[in-house]
Amino acid sequence: MAAKPHMGKVVDQPGKLVQLSAVQAAAERIAGQVLRTPCTRSETLSAMLGAEVYLKFENHQFTASFKERGALNWLSSLPADARQRGVLAVSAGNHAQAVAYHAARLGIPAVIVMPRSTPNAKVEHTKVFGPEILLVGESLDEAMAEAGQLVAERNLTLAHPFDDERVIAGQGTVGLELLEQVEGLDAVLVPVGGGGLIGGMGAAIKALAPSVRLYGVQMERFSAAHDRFHGLADSRPGQLGTVAEGIAVKSPGKRSWPLVAAHVDGFFKVSEVAVEQSVFALLEVEKTVAEGAGAAALAALTANAAHFEGKRVAVVVSGGNIDMMILSSLLQRGLVRGSRLVRLVIEIPDLPGALGKLTSALGRLDSNIIEIVHQRAFGASSVRATVVELVLQMRGEEQSGQVLDALKAQGYSAQLRDR
Amino acid sequence: MAAKPHMGKVVDQPGKLVQLSAVQAAAERIAGQVLRTPCTRSETLSAMLGAEVYLKFENHQFTASFKERGALNWLSSLPADARQRGVLAVSAGNHAQAVAYHAARLGIPAVIVMPRSTPNAKVEHTKVFGPEILLVGESLDEAMAEAGQLVAERNLTLAHPFDDERVIAGQGTVGLELLEQVEGLDAVLVPVGGGGLIGGMGAAIKALAPSVRLYGVQMERFSAAHDRFHGLADSRPGQLGTVAEGIAVKSPGKRSWPLVAAHVDGFFKVSEVAVEQSVFALLEVEKTVAEGAGAAALAALTANAAHFEGKRVAVVVSGGNIDMMILSSLLQRGLVRGSRLVRLVIEIPDLPGALGKLTSALGRLDSNIIEIVHQRAFGASSVRATVVELVLQMRGEEQSGQVLDALKAQGYSAQLRDR
Repeated sequence: MAAKPHMGKVVDQPGKLVQLSAVQAAAERIAGQVLRTPCTRSETLSAMLGAEVYLKFENHQFTASFKERGALNWLSSLPADARQRGVLAVSAGNHAQAVAYHAARLGIPAVIVMPRSTPNAKVEHTKVFGPEILLVGESLDEAMAEAGQLVAERNLTLAHPFDDERVIAGQGTVGLELLEQVEGLDAVLVPVGGGGLIGGMGAAIKALAPSVRLYGVQMERFSAAHDRFHGLADSRPGQLGTVAEGIAVKSPGKRSWPLVAAHVDGFFKVSEVAVEQSVFALLEVEKTVAEGAGAAALAALTANAAHFEGKRVAVVVSGGNIDMMILSSLLQRGLVRGSRLVRLVIEIPDLPGALGKLTSALGRLDSNIIEIVHQRAFGASSVRATVVELVLQMRGEEQSGQVLDALKAQGYSAQLRDR
Repeated sequence: MAAKPHMGKVVDQPGKLVQLSAVQAAAERIAGQVLRTPCTRSETLSAMLGAEVYLKFENHQFTASFKERGALNWLSSLPADARQRGVLAVSAGNHAQAVAYHAARLGIPAVIVMPRSTPNAKVEHTKVFGPEILLVGESLDEAMAEAGQLVAERNLTLAHPFDDERVIAGQGTVGLELLEQVEGLDAVLVPVGGGGLIGGMGAAIKALAPSVRLYGVQMERFSAAHDRFHGLADSRPGQLGTVAEGIAVKSPGKRSWPLVAAHVDGFFKVSEVAVEQSVFALLEVEKTVAEGAGAAALAALTANAAHFEGKRVAVVVSGGNIDMMILSSLLQRGLVRGSRLVRLVIEIPDLPGALGKLTSALGRLDSNIIEIVHQRAFGASSVRATVVELVLQMRGEEQSGQVLDALKAQGYSAQLRDR
């Protein structure tokens, strides 16, 4: 993070910015149809991080993300004829679910375009709301191009995921609620993809409580808004994906960017592992499921806790849609990082009973065996020896050190395998 | 579930039952110190189960279970001298955390006794609140016996986890809140271990809204209250543990049982797998972490949905303390049950390139390979063949059938391994 750069350089469209009044109108328009999500103080995170930490639970929305706010505000603002003709959204994620759900509620026909590679689970999560789903193109870009044609041919209205004043105003209602829910707020951390959420929140917060600091959070692997904010050249996202695909956006929008430039006080970049750890912490400590993007703001707060010491900080948990397979892997990776799952390689004599002796010793050391591979061909020091690779459940670094020492004291040559 | 048996047979202690007034007094006593947890309608579960399903989120409590209510009511009711001498609780779970946390808040010295075998993670979760922790005995029974001595020697007061009027009255506040939060409630499902929670809730609910049906839920492996309710002989819990250790109680309490007998309308027993599925559903659909006991009531509702068709039903999600390793395994087991993780055994020729051909074919079928074991010694039909065992990520039963068919069409002898 660095100081805010000079504004003149970054505003690339001087049109009228979304104002507080638009956010307030959105709040009225969507009231009762979108959850006013809870925002509660986390005792444990506050103690851990040395700040007063408030979590804004947008993952409690029905489709489990803040996207409903913008989508509903946009849908509700469409003229009658556009409503009748229908809308189209290009998304495999939270935006698709938000548009499909509220279009169905309002009786507006919806077409959702997804890349052909979209995992079926994501298709199914949108399909339940009954829209027409089209799988086209190899990538989101290709799908987007085809969607443009469809919109023209079928006279539909395109629902942009972030670069639209009504969408931005809708997302801004998160900021209004925060100010009502947390008195004396010092700072807010918001995950940033296209900039719609933070842009709308900025419009609301900076008009009503200009002293509240507003910070954007991006992934190291997708940092377009961060980079532009700091006047850096546009970075190209690499080949590798990110755990926070909800904010993996190539560049901020034309309508959202000027709001970011005008209202945001700073940006943080966070690593993949930091976000994984925050998903883990939200699950273990707060008993809540956050997707990667939804945990990014907490990751930034955790990595920069000194910066927020003693402050009252709100963190937007923007969504909770995470694949259960990925969540399961993420939990195991978290246990490995915390030395609660440990991989040991141990050479034992190639004799009947040797494995029984080793595993009994581990049992006495109160360590549960999760996986075991026992093989002769590789890595043993002698043809009379064999190598056992074990995955063990531990209580953390302390116990895993004790187990290692105890095994060595019993004459085993045990080694921790790199994580 | 069956009709309520004749009451005279089951009341084994005729003493005065906990009354509504005691629950109301408890509510006043603990107000502001224990969370008034949210109770919200689940759209998705309602649609899935054909009932109006409300979830009471006791897993949102600071120590992530309802136990704080009873513990705090009990602690607050102690005379000054008993407070000064201190309290003792025997528990490795939610009761320990609840007593340790609120004793610390109130400045009451606390001793927590846990069996020596208690996983360190559980010790740590209690230790943070600063009580004296004693690890004694091989089992909870042995710990309990030693605790009795300690209480006498050190002149402490024993904090019983459920069989105490103040504890029962405290837990009953869940019932008061439910009645305030859900209008027109038809039924409530409550997990039952010792019977303190359902007993207290019964005292409140049946006094204020006698038409609300109250159902207890127990595990097939720990069904003492269920069995006694139905006049069956006491069953002995087997050797195997349960995913719902929070309600793995050998017999209901002397003070809680008469309340159960007086107020409960029926009992359900649920299986281990049904509870695992409910933990999975609460995580995937509701984005909330429930422990096994916390998901038991939803499991009972799911298994008996026909019984509650069209009714307004509240389910108490009693707690959220589940080990992250167990949660990770539970997620994977859930994916296996839903055919989202599938194990295939395929014989291929033992030739260079054969494995590449197979794995490329699977890639084209859009199935992600999670694990692969490739071996020659076992199960192949010829010395020129080799057996590949794959764990594959699938989108469900439909895709896994399609992949199997496609592989067969390409000449592979692929078999699904039993789950």
